[in-house]
Amino acid sequence: MAGVPPDTAWIVQPENRRYLSGFEADDSQFTESSGSLFINKDKSILVTDARYTSEAEREAVDFDVQTVKADLIEDFPGLVDLMGTQNLGFEEHYLTWDLYTRLNERMGSLSSPVVFTPLKRIVDKMREVKDSEELKALEASADLISEILDEVISGLRPGLTEEDVAWQIQGLVHESLAESLSFPAIVASGPNGALPHAVPTQRKLRNKEPVVLDVGVKLNGYCSDITRTVFLGEPAPEFRKIYQIVRQAQVTALGEVKPGVDSNHPDAVARQVITNEGFGEYFGHALGHGVGLATHEGPRLGPRDPVKLTKGMVVTVEPGIYIPGKGGVRLEEMVVIEENGSRVLTKANNLYDFSHFGL
Amino acid sequence: MAGVPPDTAWIVQPENRRYLSGFEADDSQFTESSGSLFINKDKSILVTDARYTSEAEREAVDFDVQTVKADLIEDFPGLVDLMGTQNLGFEEHYLTWDLYTRLNERMGSLSSPVVFTPLKRIVDKMREVKDSEELKALEASADLISEILDEVISGLRPGLTEEDVAWQIQGLVHESLAESLSFPAIVASGPNGALPHAVPTQRKLRNKEPVVLDVGVKLNGYCSDITRTVFLGEPAPEFRKIYQIVRQAQVTALGEVKPGVDSNHPDAVARQVITNEGFGEYFGHALGHGVGLATHEGPRLGPRDPVKLTKGMVVTVEPGIYIPGKGGVRLEEMVVIEENGSRVLTKANNLYDFSHFGL
Repeated sequence: MAGVPPDTAWIVQPENRRYLSGFEADDSQFTESSGSLFINKDKSILVTDARYTSEAEREAVDFDVQTVKADLIEDFPGLVDLMGTQNLGFEEHYLTWDLYTRLNERMGSLSSPVVFTPLKRIVDKMREVKDSEELKALEASADLISEILDEVISGLRPGLTEEDVAWQIQGLVHESLAESLSFPAIVASGPNGALPHAVPTQRKLRNKEPVVLDVGVKLNGYCSDITRTVFLGEPAPEFRKIYQIVRQAQVTALGEVKPGVDSNHPDAVARQVITNEGFGEYFGHALGHGVGLATHEGPRLGPRDPVKLTKGMVVTVEPGIYIPGKGGVRLEEMVVIEENGSRVLTKANNLYDFSHFGL
Repeated sequence: MAGVPPDTAWIVQPENRRYLSGFEADDSQFTESSGSLFINKDKSILVTDARYTSEAEREAVDFDVQTVKADLIEDFPGLVDLMGTQNLGFEEHYLTWDLYTRLNERMGSLSSPVVFTPLKRIVDKMREVKDSEELKALEASADLISEILDEVISGLRPGLTEEDVAWQIQGLVHESLAESLSFPAIVASGPNGALPHAVPTQRKLRNKEPVVLDVGVKLNGYCSDITRTVFLGEPAPEFRKIYQIVRQAQVTALGEVKPGVDSNHPDAVARQVITNEGFGEYFGHALGHGVGLATHEGPRLGPRDPVKLTKGMVVTVEPGIYIPGKGGVRLEEMVVIEENGSRVLTKANNLYDFSHFGL
């Protein structure tokens, strides 16, 4: 059956489920689905359990909401029957081997088994290009986190702990219209900044050290993501230089984020700037990633698996240099790709010249 | 090769990874692993990427930490070689069909392919029975959330919004030694309480209505989980009755949580109490679940797939009745199974007789 497109799509990935149906629930854990969609030309069904039936009916207005009787595996033949599918498209990058195998066994034991065909991330790819409503939502999300970050940075002073700052961010998000942070805030000072995914600690901010702040909100379902690195006073010459290299890498890369470009190209130019200055080995992650209903989604701006960038994609551009034991500098903007280039959505002060801190 | 046990275990599930290695990082998203373990009788390796190398080396002291060069799929043959494995156990309930298939293709193309064998949740099952250090950690986590919940409940009054209350909980968790909430706090008043997984809203608490508070913290990695339902003043007779039925179901079930009992039995007795009173159709979820490094883990106390309860398991007992459009009552305790029965770990006031509210 290879090559035969499926007649029905079965959608289990939470953001894909929301994108297609409007059903807003997250999965409380990866192994605890709050529902899935079955879609073909005749029918759109949202299958959930009793915990979510009311929410699903309210939110997924174009879907027929069905509550599972026993569990998904037991109910599966009935659902396949209801959809009249012989070839079911499944999300191979989200469905576990175990569930795939058990569903296949269950269906294979019946007289008219169904063929399972990978959907090849078709919905994830649809999500990569944002429509005008999504762009408005992403811009609002970027505006909000930019304002919050400006306020937080203006209040930074030596003696505050990383946790104090993270908590202030949480408070401002709480007072805002956002649903939540889009990921746990990173506030990483001094040597902690060398850990790209540092968790805020009781460490106190000190003069002259870099402080990496990487934050985002989820507003009306849409995520933002921004990073600034700031110094409380004149940084050591080494870090002033590192900051300038990272900023240079970012500016160079931003100029290359435009329609028709391969997604590995901006990463390559940023990496080249950093490598030319001798810091190539200290930039250990990809340049950026798509942002939308998920904080991290396609397209990835990294060295591998290039795709063509197109108008309507929203991506981050976030080079960094991390010196183990000393500290790190990362700068991140969220940009939308437009007709002739890209436009930066994040608006927090850009502190490249340090003038904000009297340097 | 069916039936041949694997010579090496490959561990990708985050809590299993932490349980075996001490590496504390979460996965930022399901599709973004922060690392995996390869373990056999000769070697213990933690494979991660550059973002996490320092943390992994600090935390997983008994493991040889390796940083992936390209990505896991590309590096996989080298890792298989290094471990000397011919039969690799994988976590079938966490690995996606896509990654499984791509790894198999990559390995199958080599001269000495490796066989992949499901691990059948062996580590998840180990985690179900807690050792004495884990029990101490879980008890501390339950103590902390009980204190927090008592404080929050004593301050409830009409006019506060659900979000206000959720934010107060967040603040108390922030001031505590806990890393975080173990899941987003549920504060569901009036009709919102009929949604077992309600998200806090701007709705104001009102007199006489039920308010469901379902909260937990993560303290030293270990989760807690507790639910109380309270009324601000004399409830309507219908909800007084529902409360009493739920409490009766809980007390009855608690008496049946002990070693040697099948895990579906406490659920059945709780369900029987609720069904006898005519509310069976309004109790739409399982009675409880294990708690440990994850908020929800095995064993599940539900009608299906029974396992034998044994000493050292920690589970929740949380019956509920949910009346659409009106409200819900859920009561949840965390208990540890001991030699001759079970002991309740959660200690927040039990408001069964309503006397706390002058009823």
